[in-house]
Amino acid sequence: MAPLSTPKSGDALFASVERVNAELFTLTYGAIVRQLITDLEEVEEVNKQLDQMGYNIGTRLVDEFLAKSNVSNCVDFKETADTIAKLGFKMFLGVTATVTNWDAEGTTCSFVLEDNPLVDFVELPDTCQGLHYCNVLSGVIRGALEMVSMKTEVTWVRDMLRGDDAYEMRVKLTKQVPEEYPYKDDD
Amino acid sequence: MAPLSTPKSGDALFASVERVNAELFTLTYGAIVRQLITDLEEVEEVNKQLDQMGYNIGTRLVDEFLAKSNVSNCVDFKETADTIAKLGFKMFLGVTATVTNWDAEGTTCSFVLEDNPLVDFVELPDTCQGLHYCNVLSGVIRGALEMVSMKTEVTWVRDMLRGDDAYEMRVKLTKQVPEEYPYKDDD
Repeated sequence: MAPLSTPKSGDALFASVERVNAELFTLTYGAIVRQLITDLEEVEEVNKQLDQMGYNIGTRLVDEFLAKSNVSNCVDFKETADTIAKLGFKMFLGVTATVTNWDAEGTTCSFVLEDNPLVDFVELPDTCQGLHYCNVLSGVIRGALEMVSMKTEVTWVRDMLRGDDAYEMRVKLTKQVPEEYPYKDDD
Repeated sequence: MAPLSTPKSGDALFASVERVNAELFTLTYGAIVRQLITDLEEVEEVNKQLDQMGYNIGTRLVDEFLAKSNVSNCVDFKETADTIAKLGFKMFLGVTATVTNWDAEGTTCSFVLEDNPLVDFVELPDTCQGLHYCNVLSGVIRGALEMVSMKTEVTWVRDMLRGDDAYEMRVKLTKQVPEEYPYKDDD
């Protein structure tokens, strides 16, 4: 499909969507994490569940993103990564990410977030040191990319809740599926 | 405390807070409900848990509301209900509620919502007919009111997911505690 108009800026895109209060979102997300910790006990299981939730959410959000952003097919993984960082993060969380640390093949890069609405007011107790609190985000990226035919592995390499100086997730493209009706029908 | 300035309008208030995409919030909330149904099995238990989550969230949100809205103490339950409907809902969800169906004593009223961002894309399967999907909202109201010294019971009387024509929750003031340091320290 040819684009009907040029892609919107991140700010215009964020202004164009329905929004709710960020604190409500943060507290609601915190309630999920707490609930999962209570129910599942093992931190590794919580990480897995958050990732799966994010994956499911990502496969849905990609439709709203494509519908509203006027972004047509990105030519390659690099352009896709830039689009996610500048437009995707902005449209959904109101912040932007930096794309950095590309490998020589152009198949692995990092998203670095300095501002992260998910973690306001969050402090991890000692019993949760293995928790990837923001695993829903890496799941969203993985789910959204899979819907545009890119299989990825996404892992956290820096996490301010663990004392690092930023949030950094490493995104590795493992397989690019030929694009052919990649979108599932909503029904 | 005397008010330092007049209360903001709902629109100004909503514009003044950090926000995230409503669809992300809706999908995230949906992920919690689904998780609770899987974990707890009994719909009644899910309702209880959502209410408790909402209560916890409400006790936190009231601080942001009071800090940003310039609302000082409301004189009575009626004024409090109007403030929640016009400013509280707007500040957090971007919608307003109507206050109606007051009883003769002025201690019970209804909040009616025609637009409810929580339920976009939601359809309940037959196995979930007893679910109060939006129970987090009634919990938030209960929690927030308790922090300003009003004990309430909040129940759903209409629910569009159950085929009604609007969302209506009934709020009954059961006890008004004399106001004396009602806020817990954040630590």
